[in-house]
Amino acid sequence: MLSKPQIRAITLLQQKKFRKEQGLFIVEGIKSVTEFLHSDYSVQRIYYTTQAAAKLPKIPQNIKSVKIDDTTLARISSLKSPQGVLALVSIPDYPPLTTDVLQKGFHLVLDDIQDPGNLGTIIRTAEWFGLKHVICSIGSVDAYNPKTVQASMGSLARMQIHYTDIVKLVAYSPIPVFGAVLDGNSIYDTDFGEQGLVVLGNEGNGIGPAVLPHITQHITIPRIGQAESLNVAISAALFCAELTRKRGNT
Amino acid sequence: MLSKPQIRAITLLQQKKFRKEQGLFIVEGIKSVTEFLHSDYSVQRIYYTTQAAAKLPKIPQNIKSVKIDDTTLARISSLKSPQGVLALVSIPDYPPLTTDVLQKGFHLVLDDIQDPGNLGTIIRTAEWFGLKHVICSIGSVDAYNPKTVQASMGSLARMQIHYTDIVKLVAYSPIPVFGAVLDGNSIYDTDFGEQGLVVLGNEGNGIGPAVLPHITQHITIPRIGQAESLNVAISAALFCAELTRKRGNT
Repeated sequence: MLSKPQIRAITLLQQKKFRKEQGLFIVEGIKSVTEFLHSDYSVQRIYYTTQAAAKLPKIPQNIKSVKIDDTTLARISSLKSPQGVLALVSIPDYPPLTTDVLQKGFHLVLDDIQDPGNLGTIIRTAEWFGLKHVICSIGSVDAYNPKTVQASMGSLARMQIHYTDIVKLVAYSPIPVFGAVLDGNSIYDTDFGEQGLVVLGNEGNGIGPAVLPHITQHITIPRIGQAESLNVAISAALFCAELTRKRGNT
Repeated sequence: MLSKPQIRAITLLQQKKFRKEQGLFIVEGIKSVTEFLHSDYSVQRIYYTTQAAAKLPKIPQNIKSVKIDDTTLARISSLKSPQGVLALVSIPDYPPLTTDVLQKGFHLVLDDIQDPGNLGTIIRTAEWFGLKHVICSIGSVDAYNPKTVQASMGSLARMQIHYTDIVKLVAYSPIPVFGAVLDGNSIYDTDFGEQGLVVLGNEGNGIGPAVLPHITQHITIPRIGQAESLNVAISAALFCAELTRKRGNT
């Protein structure tokens, strides 16, 4: 059983402030927890129900695992329908991206993305298309938000998410800086070459005024109908697909 | 002011059962309400706050509009952050899709999509790429769910969403039936021709066993990384982009 303060300590991790303080985030569901167990992340603790026990992989001895009842799980879960298992995982501390790493292929750069579901979907999609790094502006939603972790469907376990001053990054980028805008060249006619940053803007306002001057190539996904814009995760996917195709990896 | 029963009647429209009964759904936000006012949809009633009044377009005299205070709006709103205006709009009754209509280009067919946000994003994306119709299985989430309306960002006002027995539809389709699967031919090597249905499956289970035998072309979005699958709205977008490109409309 968990005490009231223990339950509270876990639910507080739904808030960024307490995640930062504790250096921990929440992962839920058999599939996601399994993927984090098999990743470079450090899983600290696993809470699971009797029903979920059989479906869990072998848990290494150094990870404390605690059997709890359904009611307790519902209280610590961030999901409407809790999925039998919840893990506390350490927030990783990646080294800053070096020029060497940057020059290996393509990386998404997110300028103040706000929706946690969008960020999770972008991480999942970027992994599908073979990217390794997603770089977020400091003002972007936290990748360790439970909704982001959920939407990433386990991909967060294998992707590196960096938070940095992206204005500096794009200003001094050693590789081309592509930006998703509404009035640029067609994505289909663009030669992306072998490396680059692909900047995607905020849901409501697009790429911000501090970043925009540093975009070296303005790229647009051609529109046929009347929709005013595309969802940012959709735009990210269309760029990832295009980079992949252009690189002849398909 | 609105009475308690009036407020309740509006909030009940967040549930599909009551939307069906009343033939009404909720649209919120200046942009979306404006787009529905300018569409073929029949807007029945508009509730707005003093602050939003100045931003609203001219409301035709036959539409009842009611000024309400912020507290009342918060009570009838389905949003966490209400946006100053809420409209009740009639659910349209489209004629069944004829062969003539089907043969005009491409249409998305959704097999038991469950997430309202995914459906809204698909509608928005389909419109961007010039599609006119989205066809949903009877078991799919309701397009008039407030979260779907919200995620469609106004595109629902210009798209036709049909609910039908999609097993019959694909079994007797007069046009090719493409299906998004994990082990088909590359989407990049596929000649989509000039017309077709593009079937996308349920978030967890993909295309169902009743629909699968009627897929005439199994298509896959090539994967580079390790993510297990793509979000269905992302897949839909990648298909829409590909159809557009192949038709030389870009």
